[in-house]
Amino acid sequence: MRNLTLLTDLYELTMGQGYFREGKHEQLAVFDIFFRPNKLITYSVAAGMEQAAEYLENLHFSEDDIAYLRSLSLFDEEFLAYLKDLRFTGDVYAVREGEIVFPYEPILTVKAPMVQAQLVETALLTFVNHQTLIASKSSKICAAAGGGVMEFGLRRAQGADAGVYGARAAVIGGCVSTSNVYAGKLFHIPVSGTMAHSWVMNFPSELEAFRAYARSFPDACLLLVDTYNTLKSGVPHAIEVFKELRAAGHEPKGIRLDSGDLAYLSKEARKMLDKAGFPNAIICASGDLDEYSIRSLKEQGAKIDSWGVGTKLITSADLPALGGVYKLAAVYEDGVEIPKIKLSDTTEKITNPSLKEVWRIYDRETDKAIADYITRAGETVDETKPLELYHPVERWKHMTVQNFRARKLLMPLIEGGKRVAPVYSLGEISAYRAEEYARFWEEYTRQDMPHIYKVDLSQKLYELKRTMVQESGKGA
Amino acid sequence: MRNLTLLTDLYELTMGQGYFREGKHEQLAVFDIFFRPNKLITYSVAAGMEQAAEYLENLHFSEDDIAYLRSLSLFDEEFLAYLKDLRFTGDVYAVREGEIVFPYEPILTVKAPMVQAQLVETALLTFVNHQTLIASKSSKICAAAGGGVMEFGLRRAQGADAGVYGARAAVIGGCVSTSNVYAGKLFHIPVSGTMAHSWVMNFPSELEAFRAYARSFPDACLLLVDTYNTLKSGVPHAIEVFKELRAAGHEPKGIRLDSGDLAYLSKEARKMLDKAGFPNAIICASGDLDEYSIRSLKEQGAKIDSWGVGTKLITSADLPALGGVYKLAAVYEDGVEIPKIKLSDTTEKITNPSLKEVWRIYDRETDKAIADYITRAGETVDETKPLELYHPVERWKHMTVQNFRARKLLMPLIEGGKRVAPVYSLGEISAYRAEEYARFWEEYTRQDMPHIYKVDLSQKLYELKRTMVQESGKGA
Repeated sequence: MRNLTLLTDLYELTMGQGYFREGKHEQLAVFDIFFRPNKLITYSVAAGMEQAAEYLENLHFSEDDIAYLRSLSLFDEEFLAYLKDLRFTGDVYAVREGEIVFPYEPILTVKAPMVQAQLVETALLTFVNHQTLIASKSSKICAAAGGGVMEFGLRRAQGADAGVYGARAAVIGGCVSTSNVYAGKLFHIPVSGTMAHSWVMNFPSELEAFRAYARSFPDACLLLVDTYNTLKSGVPHAIEVFKELRAAGHEPKGIRLDSGDLAYLSKEARKMLDKAGFPNAIICASGDLDEYSIRSLKEQGAKIDSWGVGTKLITSADLPALGGVYKLAAVYEDGVEIPKIKLSDTTEKITNPSLKEVWRIYDRETDKAIADYITRAGETVDETKPLELYHPVERWKHMTVQNFRARKLLMPLIEGGKRVAPVYSLGEISAYRAEEYARFWEEYTRQDMPHIYKVDLSQKLYELKRTMVQESGKGA
Repeated sequence: MRNLTLLTDLYELTMGQGYFREGKHEQLAVFDIFFRPNKLITYSVAAGMEQAAEYLENLHFSEDDIAYLRSLSLFDEEFLAYLKDLRFTGDVYAVREGEIVFPYEPILTVKAPMVQAQLVETALLTFVNHQTLIASKSSKICAAAGGGVMEFGLRRAQGADAGVYGARAAVIGGCVSTSNVYAGKLFHIPVSGTMAHSWVMNFPSELEAFRAYARSFPDACLLLVDTYNTLKSGVPHAIEVFKELRAAGHEPKGIRLDSGDLAYLSKEARKMLDKAGFPNAIICASGDLDEYSIRSLKEQGAKIDSWGVGTKLITSADLPALGGVYKLAAVYEDGVEIPKIKLSDTTEKITNPSLKEVWRIYDRETDKAIADYITRAGETVDETKPLELYHPVERWKHMTVQNFRARKLLMPLIEGGKRVAPVYSLGEISAYRAEEYARFWEEYTRQDMPHIYKVDLSQKLYELKRTMVQESGKGA
């Protein structure tokens, strides 16, 4: 395992030494990770918590790391000695990976001594921002395709980790496989892929190239048919080889289209395959796909069974960063919580103070999610009584819900530095995402002009926030 | 060092087994990495070759990797045994990191036995695409700023590698430092950063927070002044602490602005600092910056000395993938080159066949670059004779150059599997980039509507390509 302890912004360490000198380094602090709304992502699929837990459990500065920090001439020996023995001893609460989450609600909360809580900020944001981004993009793409999406983006990923953890996140969001063998091994993801154009170009003829491939993979024969001319050459040659395969007792897998008018070509290829007696041969398509082009292809009646999605998924091309933030919510003095708030001229940017819980409220009749509800820690939600939900900023907007159930989203991930949450397989995480996604009305998850799902504050939390805003500016 | 041998698309391995079975696995093949033009990047800064070399020298399947591949039930024992002993034994030619490069020209060429050449395709593309992308984006941002750009993007990077290798690439493109401590240690990059808003919020007052920071870092005191009110509170408090520091014999470093109208605030803050006797205190700015906003701020006369650039640099937000490709250019039969070409209905997408050289032609009088010139390997460029340069597609466009010098861009990186290129420090690479960048007329590198720099083919290469296109389609 790589030691990523230095994967942090320098200011986490300079502040660390500052707190250390001021005797504040052991003060318990609470920080929340949440994201703000943006025009492209109204709901997200949480991911990256597993990597976060692994990182926190492994947190320690090596001798080498300390020597490097010493060489910066910024840190004193006392602080370096303190860092040398530092481990993460705090608590972390987080939503499950695969959970559908919304702007403003904490998806990961750290409660730890100040120096530790600051030190881990950057890496936690990196992991959670990245994987949540890709899982969310994947969810949108897979929703458009209705299934059968393969992650094909490694060569366009922003480095090895982006490819590997991106493939993982893509599967959490709904992809069925990846082309990335490293990710396949690490996370037990089904791997897919057959041949490139260079294979076809490397034989005297397309037919010979197809036959050679069929010899090597008689039971996994999927042929790339667009090297020369898809309908005049590629598909007829594929059918010829498929017939030879069947005569030898093997069933072919199908064909792949990687260029041209995928709607037209797939419809024609489908007819040709069906007519030749291969109705079960699948048609895969690839080439600059995303949720928009896939939806358009489906609207045009394209006959595509399986989608290879690369660049636009692995980079989340139209929104390449989620912009999650890590904000101080409280500190403790003599065991008593002192809530903290970050003010802003923009109302939506004012943070929610205090250690909190996030509840999802479901209608018992439909089992659909109605709203999320943020309370202070320790508050309970009484399912037997009507619940008033307020708009977090425009308080005159409110609704009363009855006959509901409430579920806590934040669960202990790490306690006292040790992982306590169960480890789920990627299959379990993806199934959980699918199950929970189905509990949202399509109006909230659709691609165009979705309704904004409500994330409300309890009366107690709202009052605390209002009071703090009124008393604000005292530090200035 | 991580073993990234499995960091490949599955089809590289299925093709590998196919070639192995067909007895073609040891056939020498030539593949080129190049990129196609896009509306945002007309020139690029090459990077990622160092990581590519490290990967190639370390290429080997572990026992574990072989066991995993066996578990896929796709590969036979003979091929797995072959993979077990496989090392990279080929040659690689590449441009230097920091080289200014253009669409269509090979920036890295692999000449290796077919199975090896296919196996390494994906990872080489990942490294070169990613680092070249970020170095290019960085170059544009640094050109807009005119220097003093700090890379601040780790928390928004697409995973740890994107942050770490992205920081490296950002420095190649011109950044002077990074906030990323891990990258700082690994690549000897100066690290920068001081405090977050949470530090200021964590003291009873802003003034106390500033004083505490000054106590810890009297000689590196850079204060974040926008937590409450920049001009009414932040800057006055900073000046107060700066005076105390100076009285104690220390010179303050400066202030950082992270929100608000950076043009207005920086001009006002500059006046206040100057008036208080701190003309050398620098003003850093951060917050959603990129080449466009930096240029706009400078046009408005903003007094900013140092720029912290995060999300939009580390993700290359307006173009998050470069789209470099890896195309077969030749194979060898009995030591004789058989050039290969990939056809397309789009003329620009037809590849350039054969093993090639790339030459940069400079005017001897101005020392400015005139054009790049692609020849077949073995061709020479005679500097004593006039050189005809043709447009690669529209051949009626041509020019004659005289009094020029020609420099080869592709240099041996790996020979027979061993690294032969010198190892340059990041400082050397960045200095080289700056030196070479200065050899381009601003018309080619400017942000808006740049001239398209010419990348021409030699007559021999053009004739080969034309003949191959005419004889094309034979494989169909």
